[in-house]
Amino acid sequence: MSDAKEFINLTPGPTPVPPSVYAKLSEPVLHHRTEEFGDVYKTVEEGLRCVYRTKNKVLIVTTSGTGGMESSVANVLSPGDKAVVHSTGIFGVRYCKILRNFGIEPVVIEEEWGRAADPGRLREALKEHPGASAVFCQHTDTSTGVVNDIEALAKVVREESEALTVVDAISGLAAEELETDAWDLDVVVSASQKGLMSPPGLAFLSVSEKAWQACEKASLPRFYFDWRTMHERFLMNQTPYTPAVSLFVAQAESLRLIREEGIENVWRRTTELAEYTRGRIQQLGLELFPKDPADNLTAVRLPEGVDGKKLILDIRTKERIAIAGGQQELKGRIVRISHMGFVKKPQIDAGIAALSRHLSLTPA
Amino acid sequence: MSDAKEFINLTPGPTPVPPSVYAKLSEPVLHHRTEEFGDVYKTVEEGLRCVYRTKNKVLIVTTSGTGGMESSVANVLSPGDKAVVHSTGIFGVRYCKILRNFGIEPVVIEEEWGRAADPGRLREALKEHPGASAVFCQHTDTSTGVVNDIEALAKVVREESEALTVVDAISGLAAEELETDAWDLDVVVSASQKGLMSPPGLAFLSVSEKAWQACEKASLPRFYFDWRTMHERFLMNQTPYTPAVSLFVAQAESLRLIREEGIENVWRRTTELAEYTRGRIQQLGLELFPKDPADNLTAVRLPEGVDGKKLILDIRTKERIAIAGGQQELKGRIVRISHMGFVKKPQIDAGIAALSRHLSLTPA
Repeated sequence: MSDAKEFINLTPGPTPVPPSVYAKLSEPVLHHRTEEFGDVYKTVEEGLRCVYRTKNKVLIVTTSGTGGMESSVANVLSPGDKAVVHSTGIFGVRYCKILRNFGIEPVVIEEEWGRAADPGRLREALKEHPGASAVFCQHTDTSTGVVNDIEALAKVVREESEALTVVDAISGLAAEELETDAWDLDVVVSASQKGLMSPPGLAFLSVSEKAWQACEKASLPRFYFDWRTMHERFLMNQTPYTPAVSLFVAQAESLRLIREEGIENVWRRTTELAEYTRGRIQQLGLELFPKDPADNLTAVRLPEGVDGKKLILDIRTKERIAIAGGQQELKGRIVRISHMGFVKKPQIDAGIAALSRHLSLTPA
Repeated sequence: MSDAKEFINLTPGPTPVPPSVYAKLSEPVLHHRTEEFGDVYKTVEEGLRCVYRTKNKVLIVTTSGTGGMESSVANVLSPGDKAVVHSTGIFGVRYCKILRNFGIEPVVIEEEWGRAADPGRLREALKEHPGASAVFCQHTDTSTGVVNDIEALAKVVREESEALTVVDAISGLAAEELETDAWDLDVVVSASQKGLMSPPGLAFLSVSEKAWQACEKASLPRFYFDWRTMHERFLMNQTPYTPAVSLFVAQAESLRLIREEGIENVWRRTTELAEYTRGRIQQLGLELFPKDPADNLTAVRLPEGVDGKKLILDIRTKERIAIAGGQQELKGRIVRISHMGFVKKPQIDAGIAALSRHLSLTPA
C-alpha cells in the first residue's frame, strides 16, 4: 500500500486529499456527544453553506453519495407521488433505480449520453405529466462528463409545476458554479470525496423550506436517512447516530482551505484547468466525448481499435497515474481525467503525456 | 482539538484507537475500483469472519451502526410479516422504531432495564405469536450494561419457529464471547468503533444461507442498504458505492491486531478487566446498575442526590477523563465505564480514582 503514495490521482473520486487534511485524520477520535465535536460539526455545516451558497440548513450523513441520493428521495415523496428524472448518464439511471425500489415509477427524460439536459424537454414533460412532486437531475454526471444548466432547469420546474427541484451535485459541488439560493434549488446532494477534497464517507443535503414541508408530509419509509431525526440533533450540532467523526474533522480542514481560496476562485481555477485539458487533448487529435463538457472532468473518446481497459491499466501500473475509464456501455470506449479539487497543472500534464505515449500520439 | 490528545477515553464508543490504526488513516486514499483496495477489502472481510466466528459472508457498509440495524430489517422482511423484538434497553427500542418506520408493528418483549433477555419469555412469545419471520435482539445493550445469553435465545428461536435470529452485536463483538456459526445466528450486525477499535463509519453484517434466502423474497423497500447489490460487488472484493476507504484501511489494521492477540484472548482480557472494574466499584460502596452485567461495559448506579450530568462534565473538564452518563430515563442516574477494545487497567484505575474523588468516596 505504500506504493499508493507515489500515485498521481486523476480519477473523478475519491480525488486527491491535501496534506493538511490527511494530518487531521490521525487526530484522536472525538466523542460525538461533546462540545469539541459540536464545534467541528458547526465548522463543517457553516463551510458547506458557504460552498453551497445557501442559507438553508445542510444535513451531514455518514454514508456514500448514493445514500445521500436515497435520502433525497425517501424524505420528499409518498407512495403514488409523481416524480420526474431528467437523466444525462449513469447517475440519472441511479435516481430511477432508487425511485423504483421505493415503489415510484418515474417519468424519465433521457438525453443521449454526452448531451446536457435540455430545459425545453423538461418543460414538455412537466406539461405532459402535471402534478409532479419532485424533479431529480444531476449537476454534472461524471459517467458522461457533461454539465447541466441547473439554473435553467430549476426555472422551468418553478414555471411549470409545484415540484421540488432536487439536484445531485455530488461531483459538481466546489468545482462547477452552483448557486443553491439564487437558483432556488430545494435539495442539493453532495459528498466529501470530489470537489470537497476529503476522503469518502460523508454525504451532504441542503434542504429548502419547501423541502422541509414536503418532508413532514412524505410517507416513504426511512429511518437512518430520516431528515426529521437529523433535524432534532442538528439543533445541537450533532447527528442522531454515531457519525464518522474522523471524516468530519478532515472535512472541516478541507472546507477551511476552500474558504481561504474563495469558492469563486475554486470555480475559476477548475474552469481554467478544464480549458487547458481540453486544449491539450484536442492538440493530440483526440475527440472530447461530451457535446456539453463539464469543467470538473474531461471525458475523451478513444480512437477506434484501442483497448481502453488495457490502456487504463497500463498507465496505472507502468506510469503510476490513475485515470478512469468508461462505465457500463462506455466501458473501454472513453477515458476520464478529473480536474476537481486538489489537482494542479503538473498532474494534468503528466496524465496527458502518459496518455499520448500509450496511444503513440504526438501533439499537432 | 489538540487537547483531545490527552483525554482518557472510557466511553462505550467511539472507543480509543491504537496508534498503528491512526497511522493507517493518513495513508493516501485508495481508489475503490483497484486491486489495492480489493486486497484491503478482503483483509477486512476475512478478519471479520474470524472475529464473528463464521463461515458466512460478512457485508461491509459505510454507515453508522444504526444503518446496519436498518439493513438487517429491510433485507429480511416484507409488508405484513411478523417480527419479534426482545428488548433490553435503548437499542431494543431502536429496533422497534425501525420496524415501525417500515410499517411493521413488532411483538415486543420488554425486560426491566438492567435485566437480560429471558429465554423463557421469548419461548412464550413465539408460542403466542406463531409465524414470526424474524426475532431481533441485542448481544449487549450499552444503555443498561447488560449482556444477553444469545446462545440460549437463538436456541429458543430455532425450537419454536422458522424465524431468523437477528443479533445487534454492535457493542458486543470483539468484547463478549460470540459464536455466529456455533450458535446458529442468521444475521449479526456490528460496527467499527467499539470492540473493533477503529473510528466510526463502517457497519458489518454477517448473513447466513437462510438469511440470504429471506433477502431474495423480502420486499421492504431498500436501495443503499440492499444486500443483493452488495453481494454482486462482494464477489469482486468491492462495495457497490464509493466506500469510506480510509476507514477500511484503519479497520484492516485493527483486525490485524485482534487476530495477532487472538479473539479468545480478547474476550478473556475484557472479562478480566470487567471483573476488576466491578470489584473496584463495589469496594467504593457503589452499586452496579444491571442485574446481569456485561463485560464490555460497567454501568454504575449513582447515589441518591448526585447530579450525574454535572459529575460527568466535572470529570471530563477537570480530569480530562471521558466516562459516559445514562441515556433517556437513566440520564443523570448512572455512569458507564467501558472496557471494550483498546482500554487497559491504568486507564480504568484513573477513571475510578476520578469517580471516587468527585463522589468523595473512599475504598471500604
